[in-house]
Amino acid sequence: MPALDDHVLAVPLVDHHVHGYWLQTRDRGRFENGLNEANVEPLAAFDSAFDTQIGFAVRAHCAPVLGLPRHAEPDEYWARRSELGDDEVARLFLTAAGVTDWLVDTGFGSGIADLATMGRTSGGRVGEVVRLESIAEMAAAADGDYADAFRRILRDRTASAVGTKSILAYRGGFPGDLTEPSAADVRDAAARWRAAGGTRLTDRVLLRFGLYEALRLGKPLQFHTGFGDRDCDLDDANPLHLLDFLRNSGDTPVMLLHCYPYEREAGYLAQAFNNVYVDAGLSINHLGARSPGIIARLIELAPFRKVLYSSDGFGPAELHYLGARLWRNGIGRVLGELVAADEWTERDAIRVVDLIAHGNARRVYGLS
Amino acid sequence: MPALDDHVLAVPLVDHHVHGYWLQTRDRGRFENGLNEANVEPLAAFDSAFDTQIGFAVRAHCAPVLGLPRHAEPDEYWARRSELGDDEVARLFLTAAGVTDWLVDTGFGSGIADLATMGRTSGGRVGEVVRLESIAEMAAAADGDYADAFRRILRDRTASAVGTKSILAYRGGFPGDLTEPSAADVRDAAARWRAAGGTRLTDRVLLRFGLYEALRLGKPLQFHTGFGDRDCDLDDANPLHLLDFLRNSGDTPVMLLHCYPYEREAGYLAQAFNNVYVDAGLSINHLGARSPGIIARLIELAPFRKVLYSSDGFGPAELHYLGARLWRNGIGRVLGELVAADEWTERDAIRVVDLIAHGNARRVYGLS
Amino acid sequence: MPALDDHVLAVPLVDHHVHGYWLQTRDRGRFENGLNEANVEPLAAFDSAFDTQIGFAVRAHCAPVLGLPRHAEPDEYWARRSELGDDEVARLFLTAAGVTDWLVDTGFGSGIADLATMGRTSGGRVGEVVRLESIAEMAAAADGDYADAFRRILRDRTASAVGTKSILAYRGGFPGDLTEPSAADVRDAAARWRAAGGTRLTDRVLLRFGLYEALRLGKPLQFHTGFGDRDCDLDDANPLHLLDFLRNSGDTPVMLLHCYPYEREAGYLAQAFNNVYVDAGLSINHLGARSPGIIARLIELAPFRKVLYSSDGFGPAELHYLGARLWRNGIGRVLGELVAADEWTERDAIRVVDLIAHGNARRVYGLS
Repeated sequence: MPALDDHVLAVPLVDHHVHGYWLQTRDRGRFENGLNEANVEPLAAFDSAFDTQIGFAVRAHCAPVLGLPRHAEPDEYWARRSELGDDEVARLFLTAAGVTDWLVDTGFGSGIADLATMGRTSGGRVGEVVRLESIAEMAAAADGDYADAFRRILRDRTASAVGTKSILAYRGGFPGDLTEPSAADVRDAAARWRAAGGTRLTDRVLLRFGLYEALRLGKPLQFHTGFGDRDCDLDDANPLHLLDFLRNSGDTPVMLLHCYPYEREAGYLAQAFNNVYVDAGLSINHLGARSPGIIARLIELAPFRKVLYSSDGFGPAELHYLGARLWRNGIGRVLGELVAADEWTERDAIRVVDLIAHGNARRVYGLS
Repeated sequence: MPALDDHVLAVPLVDHHVHGYWLQTRDRGRFENGLNEANVEPLAAFDSAFDTQIGFAVRAHCAPVLGLPRHAEPDEYWARRSELGDDEVARLFLTAAGVTDWLVDTGFGSGIADLATMGRTSGGRVGEVVRLESIAEMAAAADGDYADAFRRILRDRTASAVGTKSILAYRGGFPGDLTEPSAADVRDAAARWRAAGGTRLTDRVLLRFGLYEALRLGKPLQFHTGFGDRDCDLDDANPLHLLDFLRNSGDTPVMLLHCYPYEREAGYLAQAFNNVYVDAGLSINHLGARSPGIIARLIELAPFRKVLYSSDGFGPAELHYLGARLWRNGIGRVLGELVAADEWTERDAIRVVDLIAHGNARRVYGLS
Repeated sequence: MPALDDHVLAVPLVDHHVHGYWLQTRDRGRFENGLNEANVEPLAAFDSAFDTQIGFAVRAHCAPVLGLPRHAEPDEYWARRSELGDDEVARLFLTAAGVTDWLVDTGFGSGIADLATMGRTSGGRVGEVVRLESIAEMAAAADGDYADAFRRILRDRTASAVGTKSILAYRGGFPGDLTEPSAADVRDAAARWRAAGGTRLTDRVLLRFGLYEALRLGKPLQFHTGFGDRDCDLDDANPLHLLDFLRNSGDTPVMLLHCYPYEREAGYLAQAFNNVYVDAGLSINHLGARSPGIIARLIELAPFRKVLYSSDGFGPAELHYLGARLWRNGIGRVLGELVAADEWTERDAIRVVDLIAHGNARRVYGLS
């Protein structure tokens, strides 16, 4: 499919959920742990993140960007990366990704590139995604009524932002009550939380309060769902547990991120609700050569106008590039096979590529 | 595999779970919503059901039945469909499906073809599947003891029917107690329900009562499982939650319909219980070009004598045809690859096609 | 990929979870039930285990080992098997498997080959895996303090064993408290259980106690997870429910067996915890020609140094061979496609084959 293949290689991407890259990678141990999403401890001495799908994908696809042969060995890769230095590595990967817009979750991590640096390094546009749990912590630290403070800070912080993000998956998970709490309950919960120090929000009432304020704001609301680190109970991050919340969510776009291994459930929700969108996020990076499968499953039930691209890149700048590279390869393979079987036309396939690569994101985030 | 391919194209099908088609489609908005299973609201203005797997499949496979080129554009398709009119469209699709027997769930929808119309339009035989929840509502409206009325109406209504159907998935879901209730509990629950109006049964005691009456009847009992509209909590429709019920279900055949995304769990149950059967039902239609995957996964653990075909066609008559078309394409592809790899013989593949297409259904429903 | 293909055919295997084969198969009904994992009743008269994926795989891959043509018919297969006799059948299959080390779970079944017989028949080395629930029953029958007796018997029984095994999945499942119980709680629970007869342990406190004693022992601890017979609630055997236990499990290797249909969740756990390992176990046998899929999914998130091979063979000696045969075919196919697509190098593929076939097992079980 030469036209489809050429198109996939060149299509501009909106990476609608990404973080800053590490300004300093420091050592190989930290780098390898940066290729492992789920583990929160240092990798065991017998293990290496290079012996994983993502590790093999780094060698296959990132090595050439650094001027190495495809499939360069780990030692060779690390030596070249060290020789180039973090700034140059980041510049190479971010400019090679073919991303025109980076929508950056600024709520996590230190020692990472900020919005301005992301823009300067990549040459692309940047937009901000604001974490609701960060707003809550600011409101806890503010004077006066918590709810008023939350609303004021949310309004101020999102005036120039493209959307909000919830990490409810890491703060108790989705099962249980997700209705809007009463003003009195919010007041009481806020008083208790402030008295306890007002850090790392896990109070369910205040988490629920934040979600409904984000819905009221009307900008797209992102949820971490599925695969993440082990501090999150994976089955409590199954987006199906959001069903009742989604029934109450009105018209505000709700973006289900990552989704693995619940991408088929997420696709169902995207069909069931006019305001629900999905991506495969960090799953693509971590599945490496196996990522065409999730790319394909995500478009089983999800309408094609409801699917987006993101890398969830964080830490090693490889991830900001590799997500794009693997998504291009994967969507080209998946749709190319459907076209070859005469199930889809090549023209339709190209149109769907455009929708997922940037069209849907531009429409829903109001990007130019 | 020329012999297998020829066989798959021509094999007669029993569609063991289907509904009537719409006698009048009316307008394009309603038609497009008819291609979306999960959403219960009108599709958003920015969306189109043509930009989905099922939409692409309609263009690829249904357009030629209406005399259009494969992959006709949506506007062209809708214009041609309108020009032909609903009666002619239904006649074209139902006769092209290659279905000899339609087992019709008569418990849902108005303005749809009745049994006689289904038979006349298709030229095929029809059988009825009676909904237990409809029987319950008739029993609530009848005089005298509820349990006696339920049994009498069930016996009368199923005298000429091939089986029964439960939509427990939509009336509270599978988790929780599914044992047989006592006569006293049934009497009390019926009194409460009758006092409250006796419509739309959600009382768990009476739902459980109906299931055991259906088991006693001995005709195949169908369950909606998995993928449906969003009024159903998808995870409460996971057939694994039926495990305790199945342990009590004796010899009466229990048919797990649709199953997506739990088709592997359903296949496990078909292996675990002599009386459990599975199909992929409406999932095949909605997955379109991705349906070979579910067809393949359904025969991972499920014994081949326990798998059936159905379309679950409802509304647009396209679905009554498309399910058959996609199943033929999918089973041909899946088994053809196994034969090409010399994992199966072509003769065995043809035999398994016959079992799923009609052999198992004829045996279990006692069709001639 | 000639080098990869040759390597896969010849690579020595460690079968790290297997049982003895039946010394006497007796009759065809028992043989066919032995090919069905989930059903605990005799197969229905209308059914045959030969009409399943595993049945087709037996005909394709086991028939030639008995000197029959590939795809021999069931009657022919059974006649030949009967003619050869159980001893010769076992000898043929166990020597053809290419397994150098059989790690045998000795906690289940009678009339099966013991360790010495397994070694003699196969010509391979044998190691023992001791069931914790069997230790508990011995401790219940012993004199004196239950906890002391359990520890003493565990130490004695595992002195020459390679690891332990838990069937918690069959004794209440994984959901719920899996913390270490207090000594007082263990004493009380043991008294109650002894008073009730001390057979078939289902007491949660004592099950939990056994797990922590196994962790303290430090040898690899195997868990049945996922697909098994219907006495086990499949969804309660989802390894995700072990998350809290794994957070407490320290450095002792924990081996998640079988995993289907939760192999992607299991792979996640293998990435999340330095001490968690996975295999596809009996799923490979039962999926037959569909087993390449699970082999591929298991290495999506699981690091390659955390994946092992096992057959879980029990009963018909076919299973001890077929698991190996299907695993070789499957890993060859899966990795061959990745190499052909230039996603992996052939050299890396061969290295990963070695890791899964024997390298990881030798490292973690301390085999020579």
